[in-house]
Amino acid sequence: MPSSTTRTVRVELADRSYDIEIGHGTLPGLVDFIASRSKLSHIVLITDTNVDPIVGEPVAERLTEEGIELEVMVVDAGESSKCADVAADLWESMLDEGSDRQSVVVAVGGGVVGDLAGFVAATFARGLPFFQIPTSLLAQVDSSVGGKVGINLSSAKNMVGAFWQPRGVMIDVDVLKTLPEREFRAGMAEVVKYGVIMDAEFFEYLELHVAEINRRDPAALMYLIERSCQLKAQVVQDDEREETGRRAILNYGHTFAHAFEAASGYENLLHGEAVAIGMLCASRLAERRGMVNQSVTSRQLELLTALGLPTTVPDLPHDEVQKLMWHDKKVQDGRLRFVLPTRIGEVVLVQDARSEDVSRSLGETGP
Amino acid sequence: MPSSTTRTVRVELADRSYDIEIGHGTLPGLVDFIASRSKLSHIVLITDTNVDPIVGEPVAERLTEEGIELEVMVVDAGESSKCADVAADLWESMLDEGSDRQSVVVAVGGGVVGDLAGFVAATFARGLPFFQIPTSLLAQVDSSVGGKVGINLSSAKNMVGAFWQPRGVMIDVDVLKTLPEREFRAGMAEVVKYGVIMDAEFFEYLELHVAEINRRDPAALMYLIERSCQLKAQVVQDDEREETGRRAILNYGHTFAHAFEAASGYENLLHGEAVAIGMLCASRLAERRGMVNQSVTSRQLELLTALGLPTTVPDLPHDEVQKLMWHDKKVQDGRLRFVLPTRIGEVVLVQDARSEDVSRSLGETGP
Repeated sequence: MPSSTTRTVRVELADRSYDIEIGHGTLPGLVDFIASRSKLSHIVLITDTNVDPIVGEPVAERLTEEGIELEVMVVDAGESSKCADVAADLWESMLDEGSDRQSVVVAVGGGVVGDLAGFVAATFARGLPFFQIPTSLLAQVDSSVGGKVGINLSSAKNMVGAFWQPRGVMIDVDVLKTLPEREFRAGMAEVVKYGVIMDAEFFEYLELHVAEINRRDPAALMYLIERSCQLKAQVVQDDEREETGRRAILNYGHTFAHAFEAASGYENLLHGEAVAIGMLCASRLAERRGMVNQSVTSRQLELLTALGLPTTVPDLPHDEVQKLMWHDKKVQDGRLRFVLPTRIGEVVLVQDARSEDVSRSLGETGP
Repeated sequence: MPSSTTRTVRVELADRSYDIEIGHGTLPGLVDFIASRSKLSHIVLITDTNVDPIVGEPVAERLTEEGIELEVMVVDAGESSKCADVAADLWESMLDEGSDRQSVVVAVGGGVVGDLAGFVAATFARGLPFFQIPTSLLAQVDSSVGGKVGINLSSAKNMVGAFWQPRGVMIDVDVLKTLPEREFRAGMAEVVKYGVIMDAEFFEYLELHVAEINRRDPAALMYLIERSCQLKAQVVQDDEREETGRRAILNYGHTFAHAFEAASGYENLLHGEAVAIGMLCASRLAERRGMVNQSVTSRQLELLTALGLPTTVPDLPHDEVQKLMWHDKKVQDGRLRFVLPTRIGEVVLVQDARSEDVSRSLGETGP
């Protein structure tokens, strides 16, 4: 199935439909990619201090060579840039640089840059055309699909934002060559998630191609990114604004993961690492409820281990973790919702998890 | 035509359609109005220091009596609250008070409160249901219809925002009893504008009912608010996101008005006052281009005068005003666009106004 030619995933959302183009060595074609989807008189390119020298500058150079009027805005790398102050600085800078309703915003970076730049694009002049060049695996398979953009508040992530679909997403897997090992692995957790929640064959593909994936074989990467984007696009098409409940399946492992991240102060655990452990906890919880047998959990455990992801619940007080889970925004009407597997390739939403079972699923997870 | 029963104007925007209910003494029915259009577990009521004691507090009391969980957030009265800092404070306060995706935002105030609260509603948790109780005539006939919400940047008004339609707008003309005379008159400028741009009969109605209007007769107010909302709704339905150009007709008089406001530092001139003078300038410009005869201008001049609005161009240097007009955001591709009348009840968009004619139309306006 893998191939090395350019692949396109179409996200069908009526007049907000767009293409995700996946290839390698494709970034030099960015001007055409944008120009065929939007007026192109003035570009605001937003990136961060890590990505700018590696991807931002070459892209900016190319755009300038092609005669595009361009402003580059570089924010500090890291989650702390995803805040109201930085958004306000970007708005003012855009105004100073003469941005108007004809301007186009291009995000070059990981999830933080995409979410922040997307929020700025969604709100400047009541909405500008927006393009994404995701440079981390996590951003390529997750945050670049679905149009969720936003910033954090002091004590809540992604609490302010919008649904603002990009006009196009260009994924060049070559940018992954320089991605730190740990970040690459963390991105793979979300890829595994798509297999568990929607596609047993894809899960099997991952099991069979661990070696290619771990050495970042471009054809394998292109295939797994394409399939992940297709699967996420299916969910987003069914429930663009998170209204029907369908989009909730994407949160498999995340109720646990958010609590692990919060309990550890977001410092020792990358999001994908927390998701890997969270998926195993959720799978144990499903076992305890008699929804799956033990092999469903052990297949996930083996795959995640082979991909170099952590699988042991971090050493945090269980009652602290449980308390944090009850504060997660996915708590609705006082009930804690979990996305739990019924087999590899299918999950359901469970509304009535018993606190005792949740606690046990925390205790039992481990290699 | 006028009547004193409750009237409803439906704004048809597919799944974003909503009702504007116009009545007098209707505010006590607010809970039912909201509850029939949205889940109602937690309300964030946003108002300002001027409106809170007069309208905000009675509304809040009523909601509390009915057992609604309510947070009241009062911002300083005035345009300076419509900024990123105040929006960020509101986001944080909402989070502190336990707001979530089930919360509803209710704006009680004039245009500043409506725009600010609407922006906060559009962005908190990626969008909350939003209701408006406009308390100024200007907000009732203009900003409460059409879904434009937003904040100002340091040197540009309304530069950041969204299109976010309310779930419902409740207009109780009784709140106008306490509106300062000058603000009431300023609101009438936009009412006159609807007559000029779209409805000759409505313009005539205003000419014939100046006395009732000036003494704020509830039946006359209800009728002119209803008709204004209907006319604006027609335009918004045709061009919700300002894409086809149709919505531009609402800017009749505004290219001049924005320059007057900016040149006078937004201090000596209310928006509606600037619009009154701007409409006369635009009408003179149309005369100069042979599009209308002198009577079109003089009818506007007489009506605006009878309604107590200023009609003389403020004593500002013409070249300063012209320079500001060229910096207005309605400048597209370097051409200055004007909305000009072809008769009372119809306007067209003109792209090629000569600077000399614009200057003369500034000079000639006056009683």
